[in-house]
Order: sequence, then structure tokens, then C-alpha cells
Amino acid sequence: MRIYNFSPGPAVMPLPALEQAGKEMAEYKDCGMSVMEMSHRSKMYMDIHQEAEALLRDLMSIPSNYKVLFLQGGASQQFAMVPMNLYKNGKADFVITGEWANKAYKEASRVLKATVIASSEDRKFGYIPKVENISPDADYVHICSNNTICGTRFLDIPDTGNISLVSDMSSGILSEVTDVSKFGLIYAGAQKNIGPAGLTIVIIREDLIGSDYASKLPSIFQYKIHAEADSLFNTAPTYSIYMAKLCLEWLKDQGGVAGIQKINESKAALMYDFLDNSKLFRGIAEKEFRSLMNIPFTTDDDAKDKAFIKEAAEEGLLNLSGHRIVGGLRASIYNAMPTEGVQKLVNFMKEFESKNV
Amino acid sequence: MRIYNFSPGPAVMPLPALEQAGKEMAEYKDCGMSVMEMSHRSKMYMDIHQEAEALLRDLMSIPSNYKVLFLQGGASQQFAMVPMNLYKNGKADFVITGEWANKAYKEASRVLKATVIASSEDRKFGYIPKVENISPDADYVHICSNNTICGTRFLDIPDTGNISLVSDMSSGILSEVTDVSKFGLIYAGAQKNIGPAGLTIVIIREDLIGSDYASKLPSIFQYKIHAEADSLFNTAPTYSIYMAKLCLEWLKDQGGVAGIQKINESKAALMYDFLDNSKLFRGIAEKEFRSLMNIPFTTDDDAKDKAFIKEAAEEGLLNLSGHRIVGGLRASIYNAMPTEGVQKLVNFMKEFESKNV
Repeated sequence: MRIYNFSPGPAVMPLPALEQAGKEMAEYKDCGMSVMEMSHRSKMYMDIHQEAEALLRDLMSIPSNYKVLFLQGGASQQFAMVPMNLYKNGKADFVITGEWANKAYKEASRVLKATVIASSEDRKFGYIPKVENISPDADYVHICSNNTICGTRFLDIPDTGNISLVSDMSSGILSEVTDVSKFGLIYAGAQKNIGPAGLTIVIIREDLIGSDYASKLPSIFQYKIHAEADSLFNTAPTYSIYMAKLCLEWLKDQGGVAGIQKINESKAALMYDFLDNSKLFRGIAEKEFRSLMNIPFTTDDDAKDKAFIKEAAEEGLLNLSGHRIVGGLRASIYNAMPTEGVQKLVNFMKEFESKNV
Repeated sequence: MRIYNFSPGPAVMPLPALEQAGKEMAEYKDCGMSVMEMSHRSKMYMDIHQEAEALLRDLMSIPSNYKVLFLQGGASQQFAMVPMNLYKNGKADFVITGEWANKAYKEASRVLKATVIASSEDRKFGYIPKVENISPDADYVHICSNNTICGTRFLDIPDTGNISLVSDMSSGILSEVTDVSKFGLIYAGAQKNIGPAGLTIVIIREDLIGSDYASKLPSIFQYKIHAEADSLFNTAPTYSIYMAKLCLEWLKDQGGVAGIQKINESKAALMYDFLDNSKLFRGIAEKEFRSLMNIPFTTDDDAKDKAFIKEAAEEGLLNLSGHRIVGGLRASIYNAMPTEGVQKLVNFMKEFESKNV
């Protein structure tokens, strides 16, 4: 029996995509082999590769002057590759809205002069600070649009004028309508809303590709080389791209990003409405900045939080621990989490509350 | 119906592994979720991760003073990460035995002073040159132990004295018994003999981990950081590691590496014996240095080679084109290629010969 998996990532995936992958594992479309066994240069695989890109472009309305790259190494590798590739003046500005934004800043500091221009650390990353005081000669401004650990998100895309905006969208991508044209570069690990771990998406405006600095890097680190080879400079993570294609097809069936956004808003409202009226639980992030994807909450009683995690697991509601940095509880409700899962969680919270207040 | 897939990689995988993965796709061992959906920090996933490493250690008899890393980016990323991490004097020696060995050399040149100490380019990479004239202050000597394109392999591991030997083993790993203790570092993309594309194996002697130079790199590029975190510094390519575990279990069932080596030798002998007696086909690599895994051959007639590829495909014998650099034909017969597949290919070659001589 499928359980409800509230893991922050790798995370729940659409069941129809998993079922189709299971059926096609040993043989894809009567071709006599698994997708895993296909040469990345074969027509059969290339069709999958191109279809995955076309779906992503369609779902996100990615303008034609942006390249889509399928890479490896997760957001952590982009923490290094973004500064290495966008390096011109050797300076970039960072907005620190949580652990991952901070990691991006620290790793970039090993490549260029990184400056913190805003931070919400003063209130435990419970809000999104104003983005201002951008350095006029910064190569880019970096944000993390949705904060997996503290459960906040940028509701408005900051205006960075003529300085390119770069966003780590690992946990928010495809969850709500986003105007890609406002960004210079978007990157995301796949393992939340796209597909399995091991695939990384980079969406980059063409004019940012190919700086002098970047041209001296080993080939594997150059966006330009990946872009020119349509992400087949080296062997791509082919099966992960195939899985992403199946997940994107599922998303299209949900009414695309606009359709899933409505569902996500109503799923999140189920949780937040309950939390705001609960006598036992409270949401951790400040109301104005709440994430649709990651909802940290707590009873403010460590023993009760622990009991909740244990009893919820017995009901088939899994992975509700908060991140070790903030503690407490957290429900990650990505696109593939069904409304019934959130409803079941809320029902269980009510029950737990009635026994524990 | 399964065909026989002679692709050089991604390549044929063991059917029992694919069938088990297919069955377990939507739900792994009654746990209510797919392996793809598991948190990389969960006990369920950690068990898979540790078991995959234990199997590899057992199968290759990896000594305890070596670390095994599960990374991403393929051999192409190791072309950069090896020089970045092993950098001490900033010099390394390279043996050029084909296209991939040459790529490793060229990419390393972007990081340190790379010197070619031996090459077999004079005879179209058809042999393995003597490894001598090693620079006394080289940080390492790099070889590619099996050459996928030209079909040669190192039969003996060169003696590099007190200079560490590094080998790209992407297409030879686990195909024959290897004394790991003779190497400082071994790396391999998984997509030939280990599992699906998107996983890279690094086996490194502990004393080579953590140079001063490496400690200044972005975290994601440091072997030390991956080693200390047991390859869970960032989200690992979890599903690829699970698939590798299934493939390694299958390999163990074949009698381990010693068992598969015997099978590989007899599979290769089927091909080479036929080629050596054929009136139409000939093997391309020099006899003394022939690979067990990749067998380039040709009729020396472009039209006949093309006709062969086409007619073979109609018989369910796929991906027999030679690499565009050498042309002609090539059969890659990795561990998971059944003897029956090679026998069917040889039978078809006989038939084709009888019609075309």
C-alpha cells in the first residue's frame, strides 16, 4: 500500500509516472531494451531527451532566447558552476534566506567576491528580506526562491534592474507560474518537482553563456559546451531525463503549472488554515512569506513533536521531521503529493490535537 | 522481445536486475514508496547505499585503505576532478592510447602541466605503448585501462614506482580481476559494467585525499568532503546507486569478477577466433592488446560494413557501428551481454560472409 511521503527531497513522485516506468523498465515500447540501456546518441533516446526539454519549455513558457541544460551534480554543483560561468567582474550579491541560500553564498566565495546584500537571519529566516543595495558592478544577484528548511518563499520576483537575477529554484520550480524572462539563470535539482535525484536543470539566458573566464575552465564545467551539444557533450543521466519526461507529462495532465498552482494553493491552505486555528500546532514561517511546498510547524514541545512523528508514521504519514537546524515538524507537499494526503495529515493533526491539548 | 544490444555505453544491463527494478518501481519491499522517492538520509535508502558499496568492495577486493565514492558527472567530470584533487607539484604524466585517454590529457592540461610520456597514435591506437620516462615529480601517471573506441586494453598494469597510477576504467571495470592496490585512483562512469548513466565510481587510496590545493576548491569538487560524508555530502543519484546494487548482485551470482572474467574471455574468443579465420572481416586492434569488452572490426569495404549494420539490426543485433573516428564496425560485449548474443552475432557474421565473399 502506498504511504504519504512528506520528505523534503528526494520526494513523492506521481504514481502514474512510476507505474509506467515500472511497466517499461525491461522493454521500452517494444524496442527490445530498457531506456537505461539505450545509447545516448540513439534516435530512440534522443526523442525522449528532446521531448523532455520541449515539455519543460512548454510548461514554464521558457522564452526562445534561453537554453535549457540537463546536467548532473545537483544544486550543490551549481553553487560552484554559476559563479565559474557568470564570472566577469568577479563579484556577485547574495540574499540569505536560509541554509541553502547561505551554502550558495559560501561556495561562490571560493570562486569570486561574494557580498551579502540582505539576510533574514535576524528572525530565524522566517521572512523574505527586501532586496536592495545591489552592487552596480555585480555579475549577478543570487536568491533561493523557495526555502525548503524554513518554509518561506519569494512571492514577488525582486527587481534587480540591469543586473542578472539568478535563482536556486530546486524546491519551488514548476509549483507556481513563474516569469522566466525576469531571471538570467534558474537552476534546480530535479528531486523535488521534476524527477529523480541525479538530474539538474539549468535555464540560462543566452547572453550569459560563454564568458572569457568560463572558456578557460575544464569542458565539463562550461555551460557553453553543454549548450552547444544540447546537453549531450558527455553521457547524460538518460534514465533520470526519461523519468523527468514522464513526470512532466503528468504535470501537463494536471493543467500545467497554472493548474497545479491552484491545487498547490488549496493543499497549502488546508494546512495553514488548520495551523492558524490550532490550539496545539503553529506554523513556523511568517504568514506573509509562506511556502506552498514546505510547511515547517511545531507544537513547541519536543516530546510532543517526537510523539507526533511516530504516531503519524503508524498511520502511513511519513517523513514529518523538521530539518535538524530548526527542529520541530515539516510537511513537504510537492506537486505530486495528492490532496488526499494533505487532508489525511490535517485529519490526523486534529485527532492528535484533541488527545494532546 | 529483447534484442542483443552491442552499444558501447549506455549499454546492455542484466535482465534479472531490470526485471526486479521494474517490479519494485512503484513500491520497494512493501515500504509504500519507490526507491526514487526515498530521502537520501532515510534508513531504507542508506541500507541500499551501504550494500552497493559493500558489494563493490567485495567484488573488487578493494583494500581497506581505499575509499569508494559515488559521484556524478561521468568520467568527463573526473578528467577535471582528478587533477584538481591530486594537484601537489602541478604536474602529471599521460599515456595516450585513444580518444578518451587524450580527452583526459587535454582536460587535465586546463588544471596542471600535463605531459604525454607515451602514445600509440603512430599505429592508430591499435596497441598499448610501454609506459616509461615517468617524470620523477609527477603527481600521478594517467592511463585508460580499456579503450572503448579502438578496442585495446592494458594486459599488465604498468609499474610506475613511487608515482601514483590513475586509471580511467569506465569500460573495463569489473570485467576481469584487477589488483586495486597497484592504483592510486580508479574512476569509472557506471554506464558500461556497473549500472545506469548518471553514477560515477571513484576508488581512491586514502593518502591521496585532501591536498592543500584541493582544500580551496568548491566543496562539491573535493574528494575529501565526499569521502568524509560517505558520498552523501549532497543528494546522491540514489536510484542509479540502487540499480548498481542490483547489477552487482547479479555479478556476484555469476561467480564474481573471476567468474565473469572466464565468461568474458570465452565470449571474446568466439569473436576473435572467427575474425582471425574470416575471409571477409578482420579485427582492428593488434592481437596482443585486444580488449575483452570492445571489439572493433571491419570488412574494409564501407558499403559492406553499412549493409552489415543494417542486416544485423533486422536480426535483433543492434548498435554495431564503429565509432565515427575509426569507422567500420564494433561489438561491445560487456558483462551483461549473454554468450548467446555473441554466438548469434558470430553466426550472423558467418552467414553474411558466405553471401558477400
